Amino acid sequence: EIVAAIEQAMGDGPLRGKRVLVTSGPTHEPIDPVRYIANRSSGAQGTAIAKALVALGAEVVFVTGPADAPRPVGCEMVEVESAQEMLGAVQDALPVDAGVFAAAVADWRVKVASGSKIKKEKGKLPTLEFIENPDILATVSQMSEGRPGLVVGFAAETCDVIGNAQAKRLRKGCDWIVANDVRPETGIMGGTENAVHLISEGGVEDWPRMGKDEVARRLAVRIAEALARES
Amino acid sequence: EIVAAIEQAMGDGPLRGKRVLVTSGPTHEPIDPVRYIANRSSGAQGTAIAKALVALGAEVVFVTGPADAPRPVGCEMVEVESAQEMLGAVQDALPVDAGVFAAAVADWRVKVASGSKIKKEKGKLPTLEFIENPDILATVSQMSEGRPGLVVGFAAETCDVIGNAQAKRLRKGCDWIVANDVRPETGIMGGTENAVHLISEGGVEDWPRMGKDEVARRLAVRIAEALARES
Repeated sequence: EIVAAIEQAMGDGPLRGKRVLVTSGPTHEPIDPVRYIANRSSGAQGTAIAKALVALGAEVVFVTGPADAPRPVGCEMVEVESAQEMLGAVQDALPVDAGVFAAAVADWRVKVASGSKIKKEKGKLPTLEFIENPDILATVSQMSEGRPGLVVGFAAETCDVIGNAQAKRLRKGCDWIVANDVRPETGIMGGTENAVHLISEGGVEDWPRMGKDEVARRLAVRIAEALARES
Repeated sequence: EIVAAIEQAMGDGPLRGKRVLVTSGPTHEPIDPVRYIANRSSGAQGTAIAKALVALGAEVVFVTGPADAPRPVGCEMVEVESAQEMLGAVQDALPVDAGVFAAAVADWRVKVASGSKIKKEKGKLPTLEFIENPDILATVSQMSEGRPGLVVGFAAETCDVIGNAQAKRLRKGCDWIVANDVRPETGIMGGTENAVHLISEGGVEDWPRMGKDEVARRLAVRIAEALARES
């Protein structure tokens, strides 16, 4: 990692001079001071992508939720907890040449998080009212001014992986979707490998099942190619 | 830690020959294959207690939820995820001479966890119906046969710390409550110190704010004294 950071600082990779935003990890949405809603994202894929981009010479802003994965070296680091905080951090990080939205952002949060611990009372169950979180990917994809030249979203799907991901790409307005097959029987979620389809305007590419580091390297190379074509 | 384990194996601590159960960490209650409800327990206090008991010669069964804290050495280790799994593991671990229930067990779980990822649909919010989890502390405290000689519960309170903890002790039927003041302004939750009151039939002891390791050592000594009186 240190070597990669030095290479980036001294080297001349294809992403030299490009600023890339990467979001990573889960978000935690508070229920009360001690309870929250989380998801099983480890942050491993986002972290690997940040490292791969650094290795190609990019200046990386890494916006991460409370993830288990060790933080990548050589990035500008922004730690957040909730989806709302993540959106704020993303907006503060703009403008960027490319944005990679690998975080597993909670779709919903509890409408009014309790200021004190919800007490257990016999026979009484809590009622949680939900409200939609800001859609970070869609917000950035649909910016009328200052939109990154390349916006990459992720989809973790448990059924009709490609169909759902293609629909998501159009709905959000992003350029690419990295669609990950997380059907429980694949054992992907929380593991070290991903089974990925890269979905763009041009169609669908099926990548063989491979380690998250390898997915990251391939994606970083693709991003470098796309930004080179653009400029 | 290795030294502690060797000392326990060879030594002659006051808990030599005593079997003690410790539960620790949060529980995770699934919403769907990727989302779950969690709580901010790091497992640090339960882990410290297990280590302190091992250091006094106890045979420790450590039943832990998905905690960040490194696992204590020299214990019989049982890893669980949900409250229901934890209850099963606790019942399997009995009989014990003492049970220390330091885990932050979720009071509620989602009634029917979804088998596939709940999709986000425009303008549609999920409805989560909750159901009460088994009360592990009360279940063990109120066993008519095979109840541990000493049952220690924990309370993390955000207001009226002692009053709430005393009521909890009577309601659950446990012998002691270690009441921890986790009002947000104390910065205790997730930190390295605890501000503890030990509540028993005899009254309330206020311990000064101290590191979790020191809380653990004091509690282990108290447990050793109580079990010595008993036998």
